[in-house]
Amino acid sequence: MSQSIITLTTDFGTSDHFVGTMRGVILNINPQARIYDICNAVQSYDVLDGALTIAHAYRYFPVDTIHMVIVDPGVGSARRPILVTTEKHKFIAPDNGVLSLVYEREERISVRHITAEHYFLQPTSQTFHGRDVFAAVAAWLSKGVEAAKFGEEVTDYVRFASPKVKKLNDRTAKGVVLKVDKFGNLVTNIRQEDIPQLTEELPPDFKIMIGRGEVKRVRKTYAEGAAGEIFGVWGSMGYLEIVANRAIAAQLLQATKGSDVGIVFETPQWEMNGAAATNGQ
Amino acid sequence: MSQSIITLTTDFGTSDHFVGTMRGVILNINPQARIYDICNAVQSYDVLDGALTIAHAYRYFPVDTIHMVIVDPGVGSARRPILVTTEKHKFIAPDNGVLSLVYEREERISVRHITAEHYFLQPTSQTFHGRDVFAAVAAWLSKGVEAAKFGEEVTDYVRFASPKVKKLNDRTAKGVVLKVDKFGNLVTNIRQEDIPQLTEELPPDFKIMIGRGEVKRVRKTYAEGAAGEIFGVWGSMGYLEIVANRAIAAQLLQATKGSDVGIVFETPQWEMNGAAATNGQ
Amino acid sequence: MSQSIITLTTDFGTSDHFVGTMRGVILNINPQARIYDICNAVQSYDVLDGALTIAHAYRYFPVDTIHMVIVDPGVGSARRPILVTTEKHKFIAPDNGVLSLVYEREERISVRHITAEHYFLQPTSQTFHGRDVFAAVAAWLSKGVEAAKFGEEVTDYVRFASPKVKKLNDRTAKGVVLKVDKFGNLVTNIRQEDIPQLTEELPPDFKIMIGRGEVKRVRKTYAEGAAGEIFGVWGSMGYLEIVANRAIAAQLLQATKGSDVGIVFETPQWEMNGAAATNGQ
Repeated sequence: MSQSIITLTTDFGTSDHFVGTMRGVILNINPQARIYDICNAVQSYDVLDGALTIAHAYRYFPVDTIHMVIVDPGVGSARRPILVTTEKHKFIAPDNGVLSLVYEREERISVRHITAEHYFLQPTSQTFHGRDVFAAVAAWLSKGVEAAKFGEEVTDYVRFASPKVKKLNDRTAKGVVLKVDKFGNLVTNIRQEDIPQLTEELPPDFKIMIGRGEVKRVRKTYAEGAAGEIFGVWGSMGYLEIVANRAIAAQLLQATKGSDVGIVFETPQWEMNGAAATNGQ
Repeated sequence: MSQSIITLTTDFGTSDHFVGTMRGVILNINPQARIYDICNAVQSYDVLDGALTIAHAYRYFPVDTIHMVIVDPGVGSARRPILVTTEKHKFIAPDNGVLSLVYEREERISVRHITAEHYFLQPTSQTFHGRDVFAAVAAWLSKGVEAAKFGEEVTDYVRFASPKVKKLNDRTAKGVVLKVDKFGNLVTNIRQEDIPQLTEELPPDFKIMIGRGEVKRVRKTYAEGAAGEIFGVWGSMGYLEIVANRAIAAQLLQATKGSDVGIVFETPQWEMNGAAATNGQ
Repeated sequence: MSQSIITLTTDFGTSDHFVGTMRGVILNINPQARIYDICNAVQSYDVLDGALTIAHAYRYFPVDTIHMVIVDPGVGSARRPILVTTEKHKFIAPDNGVLSLVYEREERISVRHITAEHYFLQPTSQTFHGRDVFAAVAAWLSKGVEAAKFGEEVTDYVRFASPKVKKLNDRTAKGVVLKVDKFGNLVTNIRQEDIPQLTEELPPDFKIMIGRGEVKRVRKTYAEGAAGEIFGVWGSMGYLEIVANRAIAAQLLQATKGSDVGIVFETPQWEMNGAAATNGQ
């Protein structure tokens, strides 16, 4: 138990002492803890970016891993620190929705408001709870302190729905770019179940309008693209990505996070009625 | 002992093999060592930036942690490699002042000139002592080799005073921006003991002039700031930071590392005489 | 065995969940594995950059370290995943030449085509073999599964020769900039054995033409350079570097990766004939 794995997902960057200091706090309380980064380059204050990052990584880790997810623009304010347990994992985070996409994926969750201040570093700063609250709590948790010792369960925790694909009419839908990855690939919010037509070997004619370009083809791999071609790929996060083979699609298309993604089929693909206008939750 | 923790604080960046190679050297000598980064993005050659980084992180680590602090523009020249032991920690660094702020914080220190070349990698390059000297020495130290085996104590080690706040007259003081953090917050050299008036609930009227802006308020948290407001916060490093809520103060103020910070009170706040003109050492 | 060290050398960057997810996959299969980064900032799709990075780092690691080298623009295509064993180390990589400089350094290598799909994550994506293939195989290998279990030996693996110095006439040679390091030093492909004259205490008169500058001196350390001087140093990678003391040579010279490096001696230094025109392989 004391050799627990603790992961870090933060917007603290790597150019300051922030993440290093948190590692120190954890190791000082539990010298046997093993700390691994998921990503410390979440965009500053961007709770959705943090939510996407943790949601795509956490389930690959072993049972009982403790995930610290610290994107915390409200540090020191009334927002609560929370401890979340799911069937297999534990999470420490501010209660600002950064775990929303974890909640979406998990059937049974328990959310506790962390109030047991005797586990915090003293004095507790108002500006760096990553160090004084979250790292300390994660370390004690990794030493075997029971979740219930940190505070009471709450049900009014903050959660937001991830942006969903909207069907505008019987042949047109609209998505959005969730993020641009390191390679310049545009990760959209379109999942296979949103537009299953796009997963077919021979899909009905369509075009995807994004930035200043049009995409008419979904391929299986990045390497299948011709030089200069912009095309779609079902990426490893489960979303449709708009990409180029060994080139930076975001630059070629002048598209970025938040850009609209229009999907237009030549012929009607689905029936429209009020209830079905929005796919998903 | 052999499972010792070794931390890395360097200006080597993460785009080359440098830090990875040092990890290899350490693990080859002591496969049980556990290596954690404090920060590898110290600004190139910037000994003060390195000094600030290690000074704010080291004391959160467990007793007996070995801290490698390699900001070493003089590598291969006459500057000495040193091994520093304090009451609870050990440091390996070039003798160029990069541990000055550690010396300021610690009452009892021992500084040794590392001369025991049989612990170095052979051949020893003139250009990468991080690999050939510092990593190797840290690894042997982590295996239990006594500090005294690496060289003799010296007393003429290099240290510099961190930049101090100056009182210009009985209501005016001058500080400087020590660094800009990942969020664009401007970390000044002003500590609470320098200008205790700024810590009061209802401080005397003041303004802080920095870059092209003026600050008239010190708040408790980043989140308390109104949209577009620039204000002060006592940050987690113990310094006054000039910040904006979810915005980049450095950009808004056109201020950066090294920028002057003028603090002006409306009424006299202290007596002036020659001896007291400079606060601190 | 189960505490094996696994290293990561990738072009995945640190701004996404990619590397974190791979860490999760490894730890889920072998919770005792110890994962260390060599470098995750290899230039996107740049197989030579990856080859240089791993070649200069791997041999510093302990015997039996498993090195994952994932620069994989052909992910999902016909390119093979391979497992390479040398006398002391193991490598997992796509078969695209990214291990070429390891092959150059090692006398005895065994290369296997990884075909044992029951070790892969299921379902196996076409776009993230770092997660679904390479991390999973590395983890099983670290648990003691024998290399032969992953697939058959092959001899037609992909390798390229690293760019070699060319002798143009009896006093002139031509090299190239292999990479620009974090400090702006220009790492060339010139080794001491290529132009031994440059290693002499008092070399024959020469000039090195690179970018918009000329270099007339090779020094022992970075710190020996005068302010503003551009000079050569035999760097820690074994190559001639064109550098400036505490300044960014790449910027000063307007040179970059791929730039030509001309070495011109005033008097003849070697005999020319067809066979000797290219030094090395």
